[in-house]
Amino acid sequence: MIKPLVRLIEAFKKLPGVGQKQAERFAFFIVKSSQNDAENLASSIINAKKSIKTCSVCASWCEESPCEVCCDENRDRKKICVVESYTDLQVIEKTGKYKGLYHVLLGVLSPLDGVHHDDLTLKLFMKRLDKIKEILIATNPTVEGDATAMYISQLVKPHNIKITRLAKGIPSGGSIEYSDEITLINALDGRKEI
Amino acid sequence: MIKPLVRLIEAFKKLPGVGQKQAERFAFFIVKSSQNDAENLASSIINAKKSIKTCSVCASWCEESPCEVCCDENRDRKKICVVESYTDLQVIEKTGKYKGLYHVLLGVLSPLDGVHHDDLTLKLFMKRLDKIKEILIATNPTVEGDATAMYISQLVKPHNIKITRLAKGIPSGGSIEYSDEITLINALDGRKEI
Repeated sequence: MIKPLVRLIEAFKKLPGVGQKQAERFAFFIVKSSQNDAENLASSIINAKKSIKTCSVCASWCEESPCEVCCDENRDRKKICVVESYTDLQVIEKTGKYKGLYHVLLGVLSPLDGVHHDDLTLKLFMKRLDKIKEILIATNPTVEGDATAMYISQLVKPHNIKITRLAKGIPSGGSIEYSDEITLINALDGRKEI
Repeated sequence: MIKPLVRLIEAFKKLPGVGQKQAERFAFFIVKSSQNDAENLASSIINAKKSIKTCSVCASWCEESPCEVCCDENRDRKKICVVESYTDLQVIEKTGKYKGLYHVLLGVLSPLDGVHHDDLTLKLFMKRLDKIKEILIATNPTVEGDATAMYISQLVKPHNIKITRLAKGIPSGGSIEYSDEITLINALDGRKEI
């Protein structure tokens, strides 16, 4: 195969979940596509890489630091929702139900993968606890997410702040029959009066 | 979501088979990846688009026209294998079993999709029939591929050239039990004495 094509396929193969076949498909598509489309993809990549910064307050991604949420005076500045990643922040934002501030950890504690507390944005987080009334921990309900939630709650405890965590239970539209044991135990533990 | 990210996601969504979720995954990966990796992908795209040309003889992709195969004097210049695309040429080349020339149609006849004989590289092909002894038609065994093979064979017939087509039958490692009817009929029709 000709060199520029091989190089492009190798570059596409670095994208997450993309194997040889899909990378070839992408590369052939690029060669066949219009000059405009190809240039647009290339410049979008360069532009995103250049203009996306990390917010100096909450570690979220933004064009101008501090980010829009951190600057927004209409938000409830007494609440911080702690998330693992920018993506998690986005889906919580989409619900329109939460009006407080955020803090992005940029990961979870996972000693086996070499992620320790210094690798997260916890130092930045600890500086923000002044005047905060509630910390809502929204890490994933995984072993690592649970451990991180526990670690953060212990850090925050001395500051006398209310600490909450997203409810665990059966997802909307899910079935009891096919729920795993731990989900059911969480759902039973968290049962609510109606 | 911030604008450079939205723009990047939209650009990724144009790749074949990539939806919103996968495009987001790619975009987040780019933002998190090293400056080098991102620049490498962008420049590979621009470079492939700029340096890949269509061979003026066989319509294959190449860096220098005519392509390597067309220039190679060690090849059997009396045979032409007609394929739909550059990818098909690559997989036939990989077998190492075919040593003749190629011709890339850049598609198949498909009137319903608006692809007519003028859209293929048939004019270029007809100019090459001089001194050719065999045309091996390697279009896919689909309705469109069959129709294209038939059309080419009728074009070539007056030139008194041997015309062959790739054998149809049960694929290696396949099972008779799960073969469809048409494959079995093809396998029966094409049975060989052993």
